[in-house]
Amino acid sequence: MTMYDIIEKKKNKLSLTKEEIIFFINGYVNNEIPDYQAASLLMAIVLNGMNEEEVTNLTLAMADSGDKITYHFNTVDKHSTGGVGDKTTLIVAPIVASLDCKVAKMSGKGLGFTGGTIDKLEAIPGFKVQLTEEEFIKQINDINVALISQTKNIAKADKKIYALRDVTATVDSIPLIASSIMSKKIASGASNLVLDVKVGTGAFMKNIVDAQKLANLMVKIGQNAHINTLAILSNMNQPLGNNIGNILEVQEAIAVLEGHGPSDLKELSIELATQMVSLYKNINYDLAKQQVIAVLDNQKALNKFYQFINSQGGKIKEICFKPKYEYKVYTKQEGYITQMDTEEIGKIASLLGAGRMTKDDVIDYEAGIVLNKKINDYVKENDLLATLYTNKEIDLIENYLKTITITNQPIENNLILGVVK
Amino acid sequence: MTMYDIIEKKKNKLSLTKEEIIFFINGYVNNEIPDYQAASLLMAIVLNGMNEEEVTNLTLAMADSGDKITYHFNTVDKHSTGGVGDKTTLIVAPIVASLDCKVAKMSGKGLGFTGGTIDKLEAIPGFKVQLTEEEFIKQINDINVALISQTKNIAKADKKIYALRDVTATVDSIPLIASSIMSKKIASGASNLVLDVKVGTGAFMKNIVDAQKLANLMVKIGQNAHINTLAILSNMNQPLGNNIGNILEVQEAIAVLEGHGPSDLKELSIELATQMVSLYKNINYDLAKQQVIAVLDNQKALNKFYQFINSQGGKIKEICFKPKYEYKVYTKQEGYITQMDTEEIGKIASLLGAGRMTKDDVIDYEAGIVLNKKINDYVKENDLLATLYTNKEIDLIENYLKTITITNQPIENNLILGVVK
Repeated sequence: MTMYDIIEKKKNKLSLTKEEIIFFINGYVNNEIPDYQAASLLMAIVLNGMNEEEVTNLTLAMADSGDKITYHFNTVDKHSTGGVGDKTTLIVAPIVASLDCKVAKMSGKGLGFTGGTIDKLEAIPGFKVQLTEEEFIKQINDINVALISQTKNIAKADKKIYALRDVTATVDSIPLIASSIMSKKIASGASNLVLDVKVGTGAFMKNIVDAQKLANLMVKIGQNAHINTLAILSNMNQPLGNNIGNILEVQEAIAVLEGHGPSDLKELSIELATQMVSLYKNINYDLAKQQVIAVLDNQKALNKFYQFINSQGGKIKEICFKPKYEYKVYTKQEGYITQMDTEEIGKIASLLGAGRMTKDDVIDYEAGIVLNKKINDYVKENDLLATLYTNKEIDLIENYLKTITITNQPIENNLILGVVK
Repeated sequence: MTMYDIIEKKKNKLSLTKEEIIFFINGYVNNEIPDYQAASLLMAIVLNGMNEEEVTNLTLAMADSGDKITYHFNTVDKHSTGGVGDKTTLIVAPIVASLDCKVAKMSGKGLGFTGGTIDKLEAIPGFKVQLTEEEFIKQINDINVALISQTKNIAKADKKIYALRDVTATVDSIPLIASSIMSKKIASGASNLVLDVKVGTGAFMKNIVDAQKLANLMVKIGQNAHINTLAILSNMNQPLGNNIGNILEVQEAIAVLEGHGPSDLKELSIELATQMVSLYKNINYDLAKQQVIAVLDNQKALNKFYQFINSQGGKIKEICFKPKYEYKVYTKQEGYITQMDTEEIGKIASLLGAGRMTKDDVIDYEAGIVLNKKINDYVKENDLLATLYTNKEIDLIENYLKTITITNQPIENNLILGVVK
């Protein structure tokens, strides 16, 4: 078996065998296969695709390429394909933990428009994102939830392949995206998994057809790997909630747990938490939803949040939000907001300091955007659209204005677009 | 402009601009673009193609990437896409030179089943394949023909790209094959060019449709680069002539120049020489053919061959052909030979010692095959099919037998399949 023949097969639209896929993954991780051969194969995969069996084999080979974690108890995890303003993990983790579901979560740092979950937690003074394995397991046993930065050598092949995809224009491939996400979830030992596949202007998947394909494929891979997997398709044609930026998102997560907060964020959080509880406890959706709403209403989820943050050393009261600059963005036109270029809004948040462009960039936890108007809001001239917060002298008011389309009719705008199981 | 964006465009089936192609070629030659990005782009080109304008720009950028030669006189060159038993250059170069057409030819060494033209010339004791530039030009001025090993840094990008294609399964792409061949021809200063595009079991192009595409594309590139270019499509479903192997092919070339030799080799040599003379002198085909046949008949071409070999130090009389081993292959069946797996026959010749598998292999000039029966020959049981010559103790009789298909009806078998101009 040679890498040349493997590339040749995929170039000719043939399916790769399990052995060929393992040969590629192991050879690449062990530096026996050079980057240029891997790059050629990746482009052939992007253009000629892979069937479900190939993607499952690819995912399993990648999961096997590094450390694997096994828990001696059931766990539930969630994963979002990435969106702007998505702080649902901070909300759903304490909800489900307060319902006796064990959440053992390892997250990566965000390398995108806005910070990842780990960045948001690091915005809380004192919060430790690294625990020893004993501390991690003990905390899950004690309070049902722990969330740390991925330290172990999980899915080594994925790291190497992702870095290569990132420089060879081979990122946008459903088989490669699915195997990247699922290999990490398999290696980190999840037994129940709810995926949130985002669709829209702020998401990797711009249309529902691709999002559905990705969701179907990931659910099948999960099932093939004996993980209870379910995927929600959710709208990312506008930021989720009103706050973008690390401290701002922590504050908004707390608001939802306190019973207020924006309705879209609340709706998606309840949906995700319900699916997680339903999977973990093997109970029906309606019963799970009742339980989720109950722990939000009786503040058990909020208390679990504080318990979780305290347990990892975080001091919510010490959060200081005093950014040097506030830029107010006002409308110039009357009508309904019908489009928001969410990817561009994410980039603006990142330019303000909320995200990283390269992995060495330092995040400004105070930087971000508070949105006053979202899709289907009716605005008059000089209404406050949003406030941009930053510690840099950078004027992005016009940039923000350009992301908004105002017309004279509202549009259809559903948050939850489907469930795949 | 970034390489990432260039790969992204080709991945999305968009056409690359001249500037983008130059950016890639120059960046790659200067080691500013890594192999893995080049490999990714090459696979995208293989799968998504390139239009004529892109291929022309690619070819010109590659031709510009190394040294370029300019002659102060018109020259005529020929190029074959490669086949088994093809020794036509040794025949047509003296024919056209004896008709006052200047042949200034630089060849590469063969890295395929059997030796290249340079290897065949090196099989002649004393023949110098390297001349100084002054010696080369002087010889062309004196006797109209010189043939040397490519020494200058011709089409630097092609060398680097070809080496990468060779290990990334991106060889079989018509745009990449066309640009590789034509970039070297443009850089080596040909003013008239006859291409021999081989089609069949022993050729790179297995079918006439692909061969026609390649021929059309190369002729257009040549014309775009102001070279009088014409292509012949010729049959490579069986070896050309009866001899395969370096000394054996020199001997067969002399036989044709002497007025005998196998009819297929003679027919193709006359066709190629006629087209070369017609292009160079700008005279019609029939007149050119009369002249070609005349110099074969009156032995002017043969004398020119000896003059050319002598001029570069070669001593034909010193050729010694005494291979240690002769293996005779006899038929086991009666009927018409209707198929010869020519690629496999080439591999057998190479295993006997006639070709290189890697660039460091040493060629055995005596090794080779003499074919007694070819397509449409009627054979009885125990007829002599071929003799294998080698200095190694290697029995390939059964391998040779397997390359031959015998049936009870002859097939249609034309040598010249078309002309593209």
